[in-house]
Amino acid sequence: MSNIKQYITDNKERFIEELLEIIRIPSISADPAYKKDVANCAEVVAESLRKVGVQEVEILPTEGHPIVFGTHIIDPNLPTILIYGHYDVQPPDPLNLWLKPPFEPYIAPTEVHPEGAIFGRGSADDKGQFFMHVKAFEAMKANNSLTCNVKFLIEGEEEVGSAHLEDFVKNNHDKLKNDVILISDTHIYSKEQPSVTTGLRGLSYVEVSVTGPGRDLHSGLYGGAVPNPIHVLSKMIASLIDDEGHITIDGFYDNVEELSPEERSLMNELKDDPENFKNSISLREVQGEKGYTTLERIGIRPTLDCNGIWGGYIGEGAKTVIPSQAFAKISMRLVPNQTVEEITEKFTQYFKKIAPNTVHVQVKPHHGGLPYVLKSDTKEFLAAQRAMEKAFGKKVYPYRSGGSIPITSMFEKELSSKCVLMGFGMDTDAIHSPNEHFGISNYFLGIESIPYFFEEYCK
Amino acid sequence: MSNIKQYITDNKERFIEELLEIIRIPSISADPAYKKDVANCAEVVAESLRKVGVQEVEILPTEGHPIVFGTHIIDPNLPTILIYGHYDVQPPDPLNLWLKPPFEPYIAPTEVHPEGAIFGRGSADDKGQFFMHVKAFEAMKANNSLTCNVKFLIEGEEEVGSAHLEDFVKNNHDKLKNDVILISDTHIYSKEQPSVTTGLRGLSYVEVSVTGPGRDLHSGLYGGAVPNPIHVLSKMIASLIDDEGHITIDGFYDNVEELSPEERSLMNELKDDPENFKNSISLREVQGEKGYTTLERIGIRPTLDCNGIWGGYIGEGAKTVIPSQAFAKISMRLVPNQTVEEITEKFTQYFKKIAPNTVHVQVKPHHGGLPYVLKSDTKEFLAAQRAMEKAFGKKVYPYRSGGSIPITSMFEKELSSKCVLMGFGMDTDAIHSPNEHFGISNYFLGIESIPYFFEEYCK
Repeated sequence: MSNIKQYITDNKERFIEELLEIIRIPSISADPAYKKDVANCAEVVAESLRKVGVQEVEILPTEGHPIVFGTHIIDPNLPTILIYGHYDVQPPDPLNLWLKPPFEPYIAPTEVHPEGAIFGRGSADDKGQFFMHVKAFEAMKANNSLTCNVKFLIEGEEEVGSAHLEDFVKNNHDKLKNDVILISDTHIYSKEQPSVTTGLRGLSYVEVSVTGPGRDLHSGLYGGAVPNPIHVLSKMIASLIDDEGHITIDGFYDNVEELSPEERSLMNELKDDPENFKNSISLREVQGEKGYTTLERIGIRPTLDCNGIWGGYIGEGAKTVIPSQAFAKISMRLVPNQTVEEITEKFTQYFKKIAPNTVHVQVKPHHGGLPYVLKSDTKEFLAAQRAMEKAFGKKVYPYRSGGSIPITSMFEKELSSKCVLMGFGMDTDAIHSPNEHFGISNYFLGIESIPYFFEEYCK
Repeated sequence: MSNIKQYITDNKERFIEELLEIIRIPSISADPAYKKDVANCAEVVAESLRKVGVQEVEILPTEGHPIVFGTHIIDPNLPTILIYGHYDVQPPDPLNLWLKPPFEPYIAPTEVHPEGAIFGRGSADDKGQFFMHVKAFEAMKANNSLTCNVKFLIEGEEEVGSAHLEDFVKNNHDKLKNDVILISDTHIYSKEQPSVTTGLRGLSYVEVSVTGPGRDLHSGLYGGAVPNPIHVLSKMIASLIDDEGHITIDGFYDNVEELSPEERSLMNELKDDPENFKNSISLREVQGEKGYTTLERIGIRPTLDCNGIWGGYIGEGAKTVIPSQAFAKISMRLVPNQTVEEITEKFTQYFKKIAPNTVHVQVKPHHGGLPYVLKSDTKEFLAAQRAMEKAFGKKVYPYRSGGSIPITSMFEKELSSKCVLMGFGMDTDAIHSPNEHFGISNYFLGIESIPYFFEEYCK
C-alpha cells in the first residue's frame, strides 16, 4: 500500500487538473438544451477509463443519456467490485448566487476545507466522487496491486431519476454480475466523525396544479368573488403538515419502520452539535417532527417538502392578476417499508380530497425511489469501515443519511448484491446549491480509502 | 348631432385602422426593455392629437415615461373638459396562451361581440378607450360642433401605478385647470344593462419574502429538520383569509364604509346572473366573503389577492431542493374610507406577527391608490348617464366596479373637479389577460357617447 500512497502523492496536481476538466462540461441532464454537453461528458469519462487501462470501455446509448461502462477482469475466480457513479449534474440555478460561473471550476479555501476546495457544479455530486475511483484504479493498476475484478457503471441520468437505468440493469444481468457495488455519492458526517452511510431515504416526487378560473383575471374586477388558485394551493400545502411537524396524509405512516430504543440510541452516538448545524446553513431555528432529534428527522423519518411553487405574475414590478392556475413540485422522502407507489397514491388521494370544489386539481408523479438500509454487521459495511479508518486514522461511524439514491434498492433486487455507500463529501459542500464544492483533502482521502476497501473486501 | 353621427359612420374603417396602428406598439411600461417603444407610442399619440387639430400638443418628460398633453381652448369662458387616459399597457405574459401575438392586432367575432372585436394587448385597456376621445374630438371639430374647451392628458405609467403623475399634477395646477375630468378606462355592466362606473376600489400592493436557511439545501439531506420557506409562506398566505372569506389582518375592516340597506338594494338593481358570471370565466364555483352578493364582493368590499408566488425550482423536471427563499406579490383592494398607508401598515404588522421565529420576513410596498366614489345625484354622473342613454337607446345604471384607477382620488383632491368614469369595455374583454380585445360596436358607441356628454355637460 505504501507504493500506492506514494503514487497518489506524486500525481496529486494531475489528479486535480483532470477532475477540473470534467467539471467544465455542463452535463445538466434535466435540461434538453444541454443534451450535447451530456453526450460529450460521457465521451470524456470513457476516455478517462481507457487512459488508466480499463480493458473494455463502452458508451452504451439509452433512450435518454448514455451510460459509460467499463470492465476489467484480472481473474474470473476473483470477486468483482462494481463501481457506480454518475457524470450528470443538477441545474445550476439560481445562477446569480454563484460567486463564479458554475462550470468554470476554481480552488479556494473554506472554513471546513482550509486546505482548499474545488468549486463548481458537480464537484462533489458526483464528478469528484466517481472520479476518485478512476484515479484509485489508476494507482492500483500502475502498482500492480489490483486484488480483484472491477466494473465501472457511470450513468448520465441520476439527477433526473435514473430514468433508463432500471431497464438497462434488467437487460444486462450478466454484464453487470458482481459481488458488491461500491458507490461514492454521499457525505461523511464530519472530518472528526467520518462515517459510512448505512441508510438512505426513498423518494416520491409529484407536480401538482390547481386551476380556478378558466383564464387569468384582473384582480380588481374579480377580486373577492372568485377562488384564487394561489390561495387555494397555499392552503392545501399548508395543511399537509400539522403544527407538530407530522404529515397529515391519510395512512402516510402506516408502514414506517419504527426503530427500537437501542437502534435509536446507537444512531445518536454520533455527537450532533445543534449550533453547528444551524450555523452551517445560516438558520435561525431548526424545525421538524416533534419527538425526534435532527439526526432522526433526517435519517429515519419520512418527510414532505415543497421543492418549487409558482403562479401568477413573477416578473419585475406589480401586475394585478388573479391567475388561472398555480403549481407546485412536492417531494416526500420515504423510509423502510414505505414504497413509492403507496405514498404517491396516498398523496394523490389526499390532495384531491382536500381540494375545495371551486377548483380543479391535477397530480402528476415524477420519478421515485425506494429507501435503502445496509446493516452494520455485514461484511460489506465492515470492509468500508476498516478501509476508511485506515485512511482517516479515526473511528468511522455508521450513519443514516436523509438523501435518496433510488437505484440502490433496485441494484440489490436485480443484481443480488449489496451496495456500499462510501462517500467522501461533506454536508457543507452545497450540493444542489450555488457554489457547490468538494474538499481537496476529501478527494484524496477517498482515492486512498478505495484501495484499502479492495484489500479489506478481498481478504 | 346627426352630422357628427354621419361623420363617424363615414370614417369607420379609418378609425379602426388608426387604432390598430397604436396597438401595434408594445408600450409595456413595467418592463425596462420596452422603454423605447413606450417613448415611440407617446410620439404617435401626440401626432394623432395634432392631426385632428388640437391646438397645442406637447410630450412632457417625467422621471419615468412621458405624458402626452393637449390643449384646445375655443373660449376661456366656456367649461373645460379634461380627458384622461393612458397609452401604456400591461405585460402580455403568459405569451403562450395568446392565439396570435399580442402586438399584432386583428379582428375576429366573439360570442359577446358577434360584430367583431379588436384583439391585442391594450385594445380595451386603454388604447381603444382613450382613442375614442381623439376620434370624438375629430368628429366634433370637423363638424364645428365643439361646445367647450378640451384638454388631453394621456399618460404612460398607469399600469405601473402612475408613478410620476401626482408630482406632475401638483406642479401644473394651472395647466390642468378644468371643470370635469372624463375617463374611459372601465367597462359597462353588459350590453343589455349599460352602466356608468360610480365607484372604484383603492389598492395596496406589496411584495413579501420569507427566508429560511441561508442557502438552497438538498431536500434529502436536510428535509424534515429545517423550515421550508415555501411551506411557511403558504401557511402565512393561507391564514390571511378565514373560512368565511374574511380577511384576518388586525383592524383591516376598521374604517370600511358600511352601506345602508337602501344603498345595497339600489346597487343590486342590476340583474346579476350567477351562471353567466361563472360561464364567462369558466369557473366551477364562485367564492368570497360570506353575507355579500358577487356584485357587493366586487363593488363595496375590500379584498386580498395573491397576484404571484414563486420559490424553489420551477423549471422542467424535478429538482430536490429546499430553497432559501420564497416570494409573493399580494394586493388588497380598498373601499371608502380605507387608506393605502393604513392598510399597507396593517398588512406589514400582521404579516410579521404571524411569521414563525424560524424565518426572516420582508415586506416591500409597491404602488397604491385610494378608492373613489361618484354619487349618482351629481351633475357629472347625470350628464354621463343621459349621454350614454342617447347612444345606447337603453336605461343606463350606476355601477360600482372592483378595479382601481388610483389617480381618480388624487385628481379630485388636487384639481377640485369630479372624475366621470364613462368606460365602454366589457368584463369579458380579458384586460390584463391573454387575448385582450375590445368590441367594435363598443368602440363606436363610445365615440358617439362622448359628443353627447359634451352637449349634456355644457347645457
